[in-house]
Amino acid sequence: MPTIEFTKGHGTGNDFVVIPDPDGVLDLDAATVAAICDRHFGVGADGVLRVVRARAAGAAPESDGSAEWFMDYRNADGSIAEMCGNGIRVFARYLLDRGLAELPDGTTLRVATRAGVKDVVRDGDGFAADLGAWRRSGGDATVRAERLAVARPGLGIDVGNPHVVVALATDAELDAIDLGTPPALDPTPPRGANVEFVVPEEPLVADGVGRIRMRVHERGSGETLSCGTGVVAAALAIRYYAGEGAPDVWRVDVPGGTLSVRVERRADGERAWLSGPAELTFDGTLAI
Amino acid sequence: MPTIEFTKGHGTGNDFVVIPDPDGVLDLDAATVAAICDRHFGVGADGVLRVVRARAAGAAPESDGSAEWFMDYRNADGSIAEMCGNGIRVFARYLLDRGLAELPDGTTLRVATRAGVKDVVRDGDGFAADLGAWRRSGGDATVRAERLAVARPGLGIDVGNPHVVVALATDAELDAIDLGTPPALDPTPPRGANVEFVVPEEPLVADGVGRIRMRVHERGSGETLSCGTGVVAAALAIRYYAGEGAPDVWRVDVPGGTLSVRVERRADGERAWLSGPAELTFDGTLAI
Repeated sequence: MPTIEFTKGHGTGNDFVVIPDPDGVLDLDAATVAAICDRHFGVGADGVLRVVRARAAGAAPESDGSAEWFMDYRNADGSIAEMCGNGIRVFARYLLDRGLAELPDGTTLRVATRAGVKDVVRDGDGFAADLGAWRRSGGDATVRAERLAVARPGLGIDVGNPHVVVALATDAELDAIDLGTPPALDPTPPRGANVEFVVPEEPLVADGVGRIRMRVHERGSGETLSCGTGVVAAALAIRYYAGEGAPDVWRVDVPGGTLSVRVERRADGERAWLSGPAELTFDGTLAI
Repeated sequence: MPTIEFTKGHGTGNDFVVIPDPDGVLDLDAATVAAICDRHFGVGADGVLRVVRARAAGAAPESDGSAEWFMDYRNADGSIAEMCGNGIRVFARYLLDRGLAELPDGTTLRVATRAGVKDVVRDGDGFAADLGAWRRSGGDATVRAERLAVARPGLGIDVGNPHVVVALATDAELDAIDLGTPPALDPTPPRGANVEFVVPEEPLVADGVGRIRMRVHERGSGETLSCGTGVVAAALAIRYYAGEGAPDVWRVDVPGGTLSVRVERRADGERAWLSGPAELTFDGTLAI
Protein backbone atom coordinates (compact mmCIF):
# COMPACT_ATOMS: atom_id res chain seq x y z
CA MET A 1 0.00 0.00 0.00
CA PRO A 2 1.24 3.52 -0.76
CA THR A 3 1.98 5.66 2.27
CA ILE A 4 1.19 9.34 2.66
CA GLU A 5 2.54 11.90 5.07
CA PHE A 6 -0.01 14.22 6.61
CA THR A 7 -0.45 16.89 9.26
CA LYS A 8 -3.52 17.37 11.40
CA GLY A 9 -4.66 20.89 12.19
CA HIS A 10 -7.69 22.86 13.32
CA GLY A 11 -9.17 26.34 13.52
CA THR A 12 -11.46 26.74 16.56
CA GLY A 13 -12.00 22.98 16.59
CA ASN A 14 -12.94 22.69 12.91
CA ASP A 15 -10.32 20.10 12.03
CA PHE A 16 -8.53 18.99 8.90
CA VAL A 17 -6.09 16.45 7.58
CA VAL A 18 -3.54 18.43 5.55
CA ILE A 19 -1.95 16.35 2.79
CA PRO A 20 1.01 17.78 0.88
CA ASP A 21 0.89 16.95 -2.83
CA PRO A 22 2.84 19.79 -4.48
CA ASP A 23 3.00 18.16 -7.89
CA GLY A 24 -0.61 17.00 -7.91
CA VAL A 25 0.17 13.32 -8.33
CA LEU A 26 -2.11 11.98 -5.59
CA ASP A 27 -5.40 10.41 -6.66
CA LEU A 28 -7.64 11.16 -3.69
CA ASP A 29 -11.01 9.66 -4.57
CA ALA A 30 -14.11 10.24 -2.46
CA ALA A 31 -13.90 6.86 -0.75
CA THR A 32 -10.30 7.47 0.30
CA VAL A 33 -11.13 10.90 1.70
CA ALA A 34 -14.10 9.49 3.61
CA ALA A 35 -11.90 6.70 5.03
CA ILE A 36 -9.24 9.21 6.11
CA CYS A 37 -11.84 11.44 7.79
CA ASP A 38 -13.54 8.59 9.69
CA ARG A 39 -12.94 9.38 13.37
CA HIS A 40 -12.68 5.74 14.50
CA PHE A 41 -11.36 3.79 11.52
CA GLY A 42 -9.21 6.53 9.96
CA VAL A 43 -7.42 9.71 11.06
CA GLY A 44 -10.60 11.64 11.75
CA ALA A 45 -11.42 15.17 10.59
CA ASP A 46 -14.10 17.49 9.28
CA GLY A 47 -12.31 17.55 5.94
CA VAL A 48 -9.12 17.14 3.92
CA LEU A 49 -6.94 19.99 2.65
CA ARG A 50 -4.73 18.83 -0.22
CA VAL A 51 -1.80 21.22 -0.74
CA VAL A 52 -1.04 21.39 -4.44
CA ARG A 53 0.72 23.95 -6.64
CA ALA A 54 -1.91 25.91 -8.57
CA ARG A 55 -0.24 25.14 -11.89
CA ALA A 56 -0.22 21.41 -11.06
CA ALA A 57 -3.83 21.24 -9.84
CA GLY A 58 -5.61 18.66 -11.95
CA ALA A 59 -8.97 20.38 -12.11
CA ALA A 60 -7.59 23.85 -12.86
CA PRO A 61 -9.01 26.16 -10.22
CA GLU A 62 -10.36 29.57 -11.05
CA SER A 63 -7.01 31.30 -10.75
CA ASP A 64 -5.44 34.46 -12.15
CA GLY A 65 -1.88 33.19 -11.79
CA SER A 66 -1.28 35.23 -8.63
CA ALA A 67 -1.59 32.23 -6.30
CA GLU A 68 1.20 29.67 -6.02
CA TRP A 69 -0.89 27.18 -4.01
CA PHE A 70 -4.31 25.67 -4.55
CA MET A 71 -6.39 24.54 -1.57
CA ASP A 72 -8.13 21.36 -2.67
CA TYR A 73 -10.78 21.10 0.04
CA ARG A 74 -12.92 17.99 0.49
CA ASN A 75 -15.72 17.39 2.96
CA ALA A 76 -15.54 14.48 5.40
CA ASP A 77 -17.88 12.44 3.16
CA GLY A 78 -15.43 12.82 0.27
CA SER A 79 -17.49 15.34 -1.67
CA ILE A 80 -15.77 18.35 -3.21
CA ALA A 81 -16.34 21.74 -1.58
CA GLU A 82 -15.55 25.20 -2.87
CA MET A 83 -14.15 26.89 0.20
CA CYS A 84 -13.78 26.59 3.94
CA GLY A 85 -13.44 29.66 6.15
CA ASN A 86 -11.60 27.84 8.95
CA GLY A 87 -9.68 25.56 6.62
CA ILE A 88 -7.99 28.36 4.72
CA ARG A 89 -6.29 29.57 7.92
CA VAL A 90 -5.02 26.05 8.66
CA PHE A 91 -3.86 25.89 5.03
CA ALA A 92 -1.94 29.17 5.46
CA ARG A 93 -0.43 28.00 8.76
CA TYR A 94 0.79 24.82 7.08
CA LEU A 95 2.38 26.69 4.13
CA LEU A 96 4.26 29.02 6.47
CA ASP A 97 5.24 26.33 8.99
CA ARG A 98 6.73 24.17 6.22
CA GLY A 99 8.47 27.05 4.46
CA LEU A 100 6.28 26.68 1.37
CA ALA A 101 5.26 30.36 1.52
CA GLU A 102 6.25 33.54 3.29
CA LEU A 103 3.96 36.16 4.74
CA PRO A 104 5.76 39.17 6.20
CA ASP A 105 3.51 41.51 8.22
CA GLY A 106 1.62 43.86 5.95
CA THR A 107 1.68 41.49 2.99
CA THR A 108 -1.01 39.27 1.53
CA LEU A 109 -0.91 35.55 0.77
CA ARG A 110 -2.98 34.62 -2.26
CA VAL A 111 -4.58 31.16 -2.06
CA ALA A 112 -6.37 29.60 -5.02
CA THR A 113 -9.64 27.84 -4.16
CA ARG A 114 -12.58 26.54 -6.16
CA ALA A 115 -14.36 29.78 -5.13
CA GLY A 116 -11.58 31.91 -6.66
CA VAL A 117 -8.34 33.33 -5.29
CA LYS A 118 -8.62 34.38 -1.64
CA ASP A 119 -6.53 36.91 0.27
CA VAL A 120 -5.04 35.88 3.62
CA VAL A 121 -3.18 38.22 5.99
CA ARG A 122 -1.69 37.81 9.44
CA ASP A 123 -3.92 38.90 12.32
CA GLY A 124 -2.36 38.62 15.77
CA ASP A 125 -1.33 35.00 16.31
CA GLY A 126 -3.76 33.86 13.63
CA PHE A 127 -4.90 34.84 10.18
CA ALA A 128 -7.70 36.78 8.52
CA ALA A 129 -9.15 35.65 5.21
CA ASP A 130 -11.33 37.56 2.78
CA LEU A 131 -14.46 35.42 2.38
CA GLY A 132 -15.90 37.78 -0.21
CA ALA A 133 -19.20 39.54 -0.77
CA TRP A 134 -22.35 38.75 1.15
CA ARG A 135 -26.03 39.38 0.55
CA ARG A 136 -29.40 38.73 2.08
CA SER A 137 -30.47 35.54 0.38
CA GLY A 138 -34.23 36.05 0.44
CA GLY A 139 -34.30 32.69 2.20
CA ASP A 140 -35.86 33.97 5.43
CA ALA A 141 -37.59 31.13 7.26
CA THR A 142 -39.40 30.25 10.44
CA VAL A 143 -37.16 27.97 12.49
CA ARG A 144 -38.15 25.21 14.89
CA ALA A 145 -35.66 23.20 16.93
CA GLU A 146 -35.82 20.54 19.65
CA ARG A 147 -36.12 22.19 23.08
CA LEU A 148 -36.57 25.63 21.57
CA ALA A 149 -39.83 26.70 23.21
CA VAL A 150 -41.38 28.55 20.28
CA ALA A 151 -40.72 28.87 16.56
CA ARG A 152 -38.50 31.84 15.71
CA PRO A 153 -37.94 33.98 12.63
CA GLY A 154 -34.65 33.34 10.83
CA LEU A 155 -32.83 35.72 8.53
CA GLY A 156 -31.52 34.27 5.26
CA ILE A 157 -27.88 35.23 4.54
CA ASP A 158 -25.75 34.09 1.63
CA VAL A 159 -21.97 34.17 2.03
CA GLY A 160 -21.25 31.79 -0.83
CA ASN A 161 -23.43 29.17 0.85
CA PRO A 162 -26.89 29.53 2.40
CA HIS A 163 -27.49 30.31 6.08
CA VAL A 164 -30.48 31.07 8.26
CA VAL A 165 -29.68 33.03 11.43
CA VAL A 166 -31.96 32.99 14.48
CA ALA A 167 -31.56 35.57 17.26
CA LEU A 168 -32.29 34.33 20.78
CA ALA A 169 -32.63 36.36 23.97
CA THR A 170 -30.67 34.41 26.57
CA ASP A 171 -27.74 32.06 27.03
CA ALA A 172 -30.09 29.63 28.78
CA GLU A 173 -32.27 29.47 25.68
CA LEU A 174 -29.20 28.87 23.48
CA ASP A 175 -27.82 26.16 25.79
CA ALA A 176 -31.14 24.33 25.99
CA ILE A 177 -31.50 23.64 22.25
CA ASP A 178 -30.92 20.04 21.19
CA LEU A 179 -29.19 20.10 17.78
CA GLY A 180 -28.98 16.31 17.65
CA THR A 181 -32.07 16.69 15.47
CA PRO A 182 -31.77 19.10 12.51
CA PRO A 183 -33.75 22.33 12.91
CA ALA A 184 -36.88 22.53 10.74
CA LEU A 185 -37.16 25.47 8.33
CA ASP A 186 -40.42 26.81 6.89
CA PRO A 187 -40.30 27.26 3.97
CA THR A 188 -37.74 24.53 3.37
CA PRO A 189 -34.79 25.94 1.36
CA PRO A 190 -34.30 23.98 -1.89
CA ARG A 191 -30.64 23.14 -1.11
CA GLY A 192 -31.00 23.26 2.67
CA ALA A 193 -29.16 25.77 4.84
CA ASN A 194 -26.83 25.96 7.79
CA VAL A 195 -28.69 27.32 10.80
CA GLU A 196 -27.06 29.61 13.37
CA PHE A 197 -28.58 30.33 16.78
CA VAL A 198 -27.20 33.54 18.21
CA VAL A 199 -27.32 35.38 21.54
CA PRO A 200 -26.06 38.96 21.87
CA GLU A 201 -23.69 39.63 24.73
CA GLU A 202 -24.51 42.32 27.28
CA PRO A 203 -23.81 44.99 26.13
CA LEU A 204 -23.99 44.07 22.46
CA VAL A 205 -21.27 46.57 21.54
CA ALA A 206 -18.18 47.30 23.62
CA ASP A 207 -15.26 49.47 22.46
CA GLY A 208 -16.81 49.60 19.01
CA VAL A 209 -16.89 45.80 18.64
CA GLY A 210 -20.14 43.83 18.36
CA ARG A 211 -20.21 40.68 20.49
CA ILE A 212 -22.30 37.57 20.03
CA ARG A 213 -22.29 33.89 20.97
CA MET A 214 -23.57 31.16 18.67
CA ARG A 215 -24.15 27.49 18.01
CA VAL A 216 -24.48 26.10 14.51
CA HIS A 217 -26.11 23.17 12.77
CA GLU A 218 -24.39 22.43 9.44
CA ARG A 219 -26.33 20.71 6.68
CA GLY A 220 -25.12 17.17 6.38
CA SER A 221 -22.78 17.40 9.40
CA GLY A 222 -24.97 18.15 12.40
CA GLU A 223 -23.82 20.45 15.18
CA THR A 224 -20.18 21.45 14.83
CA LEU A 225 -17.69 23.23 17.08
CA SER A 226 -17.27 26.00 14.54
CA CYS A 227 -18.37 26.96 11.03
CA GLY A 228 -16.45 29.77 9.37
CA THR A 229 -19.14 30.97 7.00
CA GLY A 230 -21.73 30.50 9.75
CA VAL A 231 -19.80 32.86 12.00
CA VAL A 232 -19.75 35.44 9.23
CA ALA A 233 -23.47 35.00 8.53
CA ALA A 234 -24.31 35.32 12.24
CA ALA A 235 -22.36 38.55 12.64
CA LEU A 236 -23.86 40.03 9.46
CA ALA A 237 -27.40 39.11 10.53
CA ILE A 238 -27.09 40.71 13.97
CA ARG A 239 -25.41 43.74 12.38
CA TYR A 240 -28.38 43.95 10.00
CA TYR A 241 -30.86 43.76 12.88
CA ALA A 242 -28.88 46.37 14.83
CA GLY A 243 -29.36 48.81 11.96
CA GLU A 244 -27.68 52.18 11.33
CA GLY A 245 -24.49 52.71 13.30
CA ALA A 246 -23.89 49.03 13.99
CA PRO A 247 -20.18 48.22 14.15
CA ASP A 248 -18.22 46.67 11.28
CA VAL A 249 -16.16 44.45 13.60
CA TRP A 250 -17.69 41.53 15.50
CA ARG A 251 -16.36 39.01 17.98
CA VAL A 252 -18.13 35.66 17.76
CA ASP A 253 -17.83 32.95 20.42
CA VAL A 254 -18.47 29.43 19.12
CA PRO A 255 -18.20 26.14 21.07
CA GLY A 256 -14.66 25.64 19.67
CA GLY A 257 -13.26 29.10 20.41
CA THR A 258 -13.49 32.73 19.32
CA LEU A 259 -13.45 34.25 15.84
CA SER A 260 -13.70 37.79 14.50
CA VAL A 261 -15.58 39.17 11.53
CA ARG A 262 -14.71 42.45 9.89
CA VAL A 263 -16.85 44.05 7.21
CA GLU A 264 -14.82 45.87 4.59
CA ARG A 265 -16.78 48.60 2.79
CA ARG A 266 -15.62 48.89 -0.80
CA ALA A 267 -16.88 50.79 -3.82
CA ASP A 268 -18.30 47.56 -5.26
CA GLY A 269 -20.02 46.58 -2.01
CA GLU A 270 -19.32 45.01 1.36
CA ARG A 271 -16.94 42.09 1.86
CA ALA A 272 -16.49 39.97 4.98
CA TRP A 273 -13.15 38.99 6.51
CA LEU A 274 -13.00 36.12 8.96
CA SER A 275 -10.18 36.10 11.48
CA GLY A 276 -9.06 33.52 14.02
CA PRO A 277 -6.50 31.00 15.19
CA ALA A 278 -5.03 28.11 13.21
CA GLU A 279 -3.05 25.31 14.87
CA LEU A 280 -1.16 22.27 13.65
CA THR A 281 -1.64 19.43 16.14
CA PHE A 282 0.38 16.44 14.94
CA ASP A 283 2.17 14.81 12.02
CA GLY A 284 1.43 11.32 10.78
CA THR A 285 2.05 8.61 8.24
CA LEU A 286 -0.84 6.62 6.81
CA ALA A 287 -1.14 3.74 4.34
CA ILE A 288 -3.90 4.44 1.81
CA MET B 1 7.75 20.84 24.17
CA PRO B 2 8.59 17.13 24.43
CA THR B 3 7.49 15.03 21.49
CA ILE B 4 5.99 11.54 21.65
CA GLU B 5 5.65 8.90 18.99
CA PHE B 6 2.33 7.10 18.89
CA THR B 7 0.31 4.65 16.82
CA LYS B 8 -3.44 4.77 16.33
CA GLY B 9 -5.39 1.52 16.29
CA HIS B 10 -8.88 0.13 16.73
CA GLY B 11 -10.84 -3.04 17.36
CA THR B 12 -14.29 -2.93 15.72
CA GLY B 13 -14.14 0.86 15.80
CA ASN B 14 -13.25 1.13 19.50
CA ASP B 15 -10.14 3.23 18.98
CA PHE B 16 -6.96 3.89 20.92
CA VAL B 17 -3.80 5.94 20.88
CA VAL B 18 -0.97 3.48 21.59
CA ILE B 19 2.02 5.15 23.25
CA PRO B 20 5.24 3.17 23.64
CA ASP B 21 6.96 3.84 26.95
CA PRO B 22 8.95 0.65 27.63
CA ASP B 23 10.91 2.09 30.52
CA GLY B 24 7.95 3.81 32.14
CA VAL B 25 9.43 7.30 32.04
CA LEU B 26 6.42 9.11 30.60
CA ASP B 27 4.28 11.16 32.97
CA LEU B 28 0.84 10.92 31.40
CA ASP B 29 -1.46 12.91 33.65
CA ALA B 30 -5.23 12.95 33.21
CA ALA B 31 -5.27 16.33 31.47
CA THR B 32 -2.68 15.17 28.92
CA VAL B 33 -4.61 11.98 28.18
CA ALA B 34 -7.84 13.95 27.79
CA ALA B 35 -6.10 16.39 25.42
CA ILE B 36 -4.68 13.52 23.34
CA CYS B 37 -8.09 11.83 23.12
CA ASP B 38 -9.96 14.99 22.08
CA ARG B 39 -11.22 14.27 18.57
CA HIS B 40 -10.92 17.86 17.29
CA PHE B 41 -8.09 19.46 19.27
CA GLY B 42 -5.95 16.32 19.78
CA VAL B 43 -5.42 12.94 18.13
CA GLY B 44 -8.84 11.60 19.05
CA ALA B 45 -9.62 8.19 20.58
CA ASP B 46 -11.76 6.30 23.06
CA GLY B 47 -8.68 5.80 25.21
CA VAL B 48 -4.91 5.58 25.54
CA LEU B 49 -2.88 2.36 25.78
CA ARG B 50 0.54 3.02 27.28
CA VAL B 51 2.95 0.17 26.47
CA VAL B 52 5.28 -0.28 29.43
CA ARG B 53 7.40 -3.20 30.67
CA ALA B 54 5.65 -4.80 33.66
CA ARG B 55 8.75 -4.46 35.82
CA ALA B 56 9.01 -0.75 34.93
CA ALA B 57 5.32 0.08 35.50
CA GLY B 58 5.18 2.80 38.11
CA ALA B 59 2.02 1.65 39.80
CA ALA B 60 3.00 -2.04 39.96
CA PRO B 61 0.15 -3.95 38.35
CA GLU B 62 -1.23 -7.10 39.82
CA SER B 63 1.29 -9.37 38.09
CA ASP B 64 2.76 -12.79 38.72
CA GLY B 65 5.93 -12.12 36.74
CA SER B 66 4.68 -14.08 33.73
CA ALA B 67 3.85 -10.97 31.70
CA GLU B 68 6.57 -8.88 30.10
CA TRP B 69 4.26 -6.01 29.18
CA PHE B 70 1.76 -3.98 31.16
CA MET B 71 -1.23 -2.39 29.43
CA ASP B 72 -1.73 0.98 31.10
CA TYR B 73 -5.23 1.79 29.88
CA ARG B 74 -6.80 5.23 30.34
CA ASN B 75 -10.26 6.39 29.41
CA ALA B 76 -10.74 9.34 27.06
CA ASP B 77 -11.43 11.63 30.02
CA GLY B 78 -8.04 10.73 31.50
CA SER B 79 -9.38 8.49 34.26
CA ILE B 80 -7.67 5.17 34.95
CA ALA B 81 -9.49 1.98 33.88
CA GLU B 82 -8.76 -1.61 34.79
CA MET B 83 -9.22 -3.37 31.48
CA CYS B 84 -10.54 -2.96 27.98
CA GLY B 85 -11.75 -5.95 25.98
CA ASN B 86 -11.12 -4.33 22.60
CA GLY B 87 -8.01 -2.49 23.71
CA ILE B 88 -6.12 -5.62 24.72
CA ARG B 89 -6.30 -6.95 21.14
CA VAL B 90 -4.93 -3.66 19.78
CA PHE B 91 -2.24 -3.85 22.46
CA ALA B 92 -1.30 -7.38 21.34
CA ARG B 93 -1.29 -6.31 17.67
CA TYR B 94 1.06 -3.47 18.49
CA LEU B 95 3.49 -5.70 20.46
CA LEU B 96 3.67 -8.20 17.58
CA ASP B 97 3.83 -5.60 14.81
CA ARG B 98 6.75 -3.83 16.51
CA GLY B 99 8.59 -7.03 17.38
CA LEU B 100 8.17 -6.46 21.13
CA ALA B 101 6.60 -9.90 21.58
CA GLU B 102 6.13 -13.11 19.65
CA LEU B 103 3.03 -15.26 19.51
CA PRO B 104 3.45 -18.45 17.49
CA ASP B 105 0.19 -20.30 16.78
CA GLY B 106 -0.85 -22.39 19.74
CA THR B 107 0.96 -20.20 22.28
CA THR B 108 -0.37 -17.66 24.72
CA LEU B 109 0.68 -14.04 25.22
CA ARG B 110 0.40 -12.92 28.84
CA VAL B 111 -0.52 -9.24 29.27
CA ALA B 112 -0.49 -7.53 32.65
CA THR B 113 -3.44 -5.23 33.33
CA ARG B 114 -4.88 -3.57 36.42
CA ALA B 115 -7.44 -6.42 36.42
CA GLY B 116 -4.67 -9.04 36.58
CA VAL B 117 -2.71 -10.90 33.93
CA LYS B 118 -4.79 -11.73 30.85
CA ASP B 119 -4.23 -14.48 28.28
CA VAL B 120 -4.27 -13.57 24.61
CA VAL B 121 -4.13 -16.06 21.72
CA ARG B 122 -4.32 -15.72 17.96
CA ASP B 123 -7.76 -16.32 16.45
CA GLY B 124 -7.94 -16.15 12.67
CA ASP B 125 -6.67 -12.73 11.59
CA GLY B 126 -7.40 -11.34 15.04
CA PHE B 127 -6.99 -12.27 18.67
CA ALA B 128 -8.99 -13.82 21.48
CA ALA B 129 -8.57 -12.59 25.06
CA ASP B 130 -9.68 -14.25 28.27
CA LEU B 131 -11.87 -11.66 29.98
CA GLY B 132 -12.34 -13.86 33.02
CA ALA B 133 -15.26 -15.09 35.08
CA TRP B 134 -18.76 -13.73 34.78
CA ARG B 135 -21.80 -13.77 37.03
CA ARG B 136 -25.36 -12.52 37.18
CA SER B 137 -24.97 -9.30 39.08
CA GLY B 138 -28.36 -9.16 40.75
CA GLY B 139 -28.68 -5.76 39.12
CA ASP B 140 -31.72 -6.62 37.00
CA ALA B 141 -33.59 -3.46 36.09
CA THR B 142 -36.48 -2.14 34.07
CA VAL B 143 -35.09 -0.16 31.14
CA ARG B 144 -36.59 2.82 29.39
CA ALA B 145 -35.02 4.50 26.35
CA GLU B 146 -35.97 7.27 23.93
CA ARG B 147 -38.07 5.85 21.08
CA LEU B 148 -38.35 2.46 22.75
CA ALA B 149 -42.11 2.03 22.81
CA VAL B 150 -42.44 0.33 26.20
CA ALA B 151 -40.22 -0.28 29.22
CA ARG B 152 -38.39 -3.61 29.03
CA PRO B 153 -36.85 -5.96 31.57
CA GLY B 154 -33.04 -5.93 31.65
CA LEU B 155 -30.77 -8.70 32.93
CA GLY B 156 -27.90 -7.64 35.18
CA ILE B 157 -24.56 -9.19 34.18
CA ASP B 158 -21.17 -8.55 35.75
CA VAL B 159 -18.07 -9.23 33.67
CA GLY B 160 -15.74 -7.14 35.82
CA ASN B 161 -17.96 -4.12 35.22
CA PRO B 162 -21.76 -3.83 35.44
CA HIS B 163 -24.09 -4.35 32.47
CA VAL B 164 -27.83 -4.51 31.93
CA VAL B 165 -28.91 -6.41 28.82
CA VAL B 166 -32.29 -5.85 27.15
CA ALA B 167 -33.62 -8.35 24.58
CA LEU B 168 -35.68 -6.84 21.76
CA ALA B 169 -37.78 -8.63 19.16
CA THR B 170 -36.93 -6.89 15.89
CA ASP B 171 -34.19 -5.03 14.05
CA ALA B 172 -36.63 -2.18 13.50
CA GLU B 173 -37.09 -1.83 17.25
CA LEU B 174 -33.30 -1.82 17.77
CA ASP B 175 -32.69 0.72 15.00
CA ALA B 176 -35.40 3.07 16.28
CA ILE B 177 -33.89 3.64 19.73
CA ASP B 178 -32.29 7.04 20.29
CA LEU B 179 -29.24 6.55 22.52
CA GLY B 180 -28.37 10.24 22.44
CA THR B 181 -30.13 10.27 25.79
CA PRO B 182 -28.91 7.71 28.37
CA PRO B 183 -31.37 4.86 29.02
CA ALA B 184 -33.15 5.08 32.38
CA LEU B 185 -32.76 2.10 34.75
CA ASP B 186 -35.17 1.25 37.58
CA PRO B 187 -33.81 0.64 40.14
CA THR B 188 -30.84 2.89 39.39
CA PRO B 189 -27.57 0.95 39.87
CA PRO B 190 -25.35 2.65 42.47
CA ARG B 191 -22.37 2.89 40.07
CA GLY B 192 -24.43 3.02 36.88
CA ALA B 193 -24.23 0.35 34.19
CA ASN B 194 -23.58 -0.07 30.52
CA VAL B 195 -26.81 -0.96 28.74
CA GLU B 196 -26.93 -3.38 25.77
CA PHE B 197 -29.94 -3.67 23.48
CA VAL B 198 -29.92 -7.01 21.68
CA VAL B 199 -31.87 -8.63 18.84
CA PRO B 200 -31.50 -12.34 18.08
CA GLU B 201 -30.86 -13.26 14.47
CA GLU B 202 -33.19 -15.66 12.67
CA PRO B 203 -32.48 -18.47 13.44
CA LEU B 204 -30.81 -17.71 16.76
CA VAL B 205 -28.44 -20.64 16.42
CA ALA B 206 -26.80 -21.76 13.17
CA ASP B 207 -24.08 -24.43 12.92
CA GLY B 208 -23.86 -24.45 16.71
CA VAL B 209 -23.15 -20.72 16.96
CA GLY B 210 -25.51 -18.27 18.63
CA ARG B 211 -26.05 -15.06 16.68
CA ILE B 212 -27.14 -11.67 17.95
CA ARG B 213 -26.96 -8.03 17.00
CA MET B 214 -26.58 -5.22 19.52
CA ARG B 215 -26.17 -1.54 20.25
CA VAL B 216 -24.62 -0.29 23.46
CA HIS B 217 -24.75 2.80 25.66
CA GLU B 218 -21.62 3.08 27.81
CA ARG B 219 -21.77 4.96 31.09
CA GLY B 220 -19.97 8.25 30.68
CA SER B 221 -19.36 7.78 26.94
CA GLY B 222 -22.79 7.54 25.31
CA GLU B 223 -23.43 5.22 22.38
CA THR B 224 -20.23 3.63 21.05
CA LEU B 225 -19.38 1.57 17.98
CA SER B 226 -18.31 -1.35 20.14
CA CYS B 227 -17.83 -2.27 23.81
CA GLY B 228 -15.86 -5.45 24.49
CA THR B 229 -17.33 -6.29 27.86
CA GLY B 230 -20.77 -5.29 26.59
CA VAL B 231 -20.50 -7.81 23.78
CA VAL B 232 -19.63 -10.52 26.31
CA ALA B 233 -22.48 -9.50 28.62
CA ALA B 234 -24.96 -9.50 25.73
CA ALA B 235 -23.96 -12.98 24.57
CA LEU B 236 -24.08 -14.34 28.12
CA ALA B 237 -27.51 -12.82 28.76
CA ILE B 238 -29.07 -14.28 25.64
CA ARG B 239 -27.38 -17.63 26.38
CA TYR B 240 -28.92 -17.47 29.85
CA TYR B 241 -32.38 -16.73 28.42
CA ALA B 242 -31.97 -19.54 25.87
CA GLY B 243 -31.49 -22.01 28.73
CA GLU B 244 -30.28 -25.62 28.61
CA GLY B 245 -28.48 -26.59 25.44
CA ALA B 246 -27.67 -23.02 24.41
CA PRO B 247 -24.36 -22.80 22.54
CA ASP B 248 -21.08 -21.72 24.13
CA VAL B 249 -19.98 -19.75 21.06
CA TRP B 250 -21.69 -16.53 19.98
CA ARG B 251 -21.25 -14.16 17.09
CA VAL B 252 -22.13 -10.58 17.98
CA ASP B 253 -22.64 -7.83 15.41
CA VAL B 254 -22.02 -4.32 16.72
CA PRO B 255 -22.13 -1.04 14.76
CA GLY B 256 -18.32 -1.18 14.37
CA GLY B 257 -18.02 -4.79 13.19
CA THR B 258 -18.31 -8.38 14.38
CA LEU B 259 -16.94 -10.03 17.52
CA SER B 260 -17.14 -13.55 18.93
CA VAL B 261 -17.65 -14.74 22.48
CA ARG B 262 -16.67 -18.21 23.64
CA VAL B 263 -17.59 -19.56 27.05
CA GLU B 264 -14.92 -21.79 28.49
CA ARG B 265 -16.25 -24.25 31.09
CA ARG B 266 -13.66 -24.90 33.75
CA ALA B 267 -13.69 -26.70 37.07
CA ASP B 268 -13.73 -23.36 38.87
CA GLY B 269 -16.58 -21.99 36.76
CA GLU B 270 -17.23 -20.36 33.39
CA ARG B 271 -14.89 -17.87 31.78
CA ALA B 272 -15.59 -15.70 28.72
CA TRP B 273 -13.19 -15.20 25.83
CA LEU B 274 -13.70 -12.26 23.48
CA SER B 275 -12.39 -12.59 19.96
CA GLY B 276 -12.14 -10.14 17.11
CA PRO B 277 -10.03 -8.00 14.81
CA ALA B 278 -7.36 -5.48 15.80
CA GLU B 279 -5.92 -2.98 13.34
CA LEU B 280 -3.21 -0.35 13.44
CA THR B 281 -4.28 2.63 11.35
CA PHE B 282 -1.48 5.19 11.37
CA ASP B 283 1.68 6.39 13.10
CA GLY B 284 2.16 9.89 14.41
CA THR B 285 4.33 12.36 16.27
CA LEU B 286 2.79 14.73 18.78
CA ALA B 287 4.11 17.51 20.99
CA ILE B 288 2.76 17.18 24.53
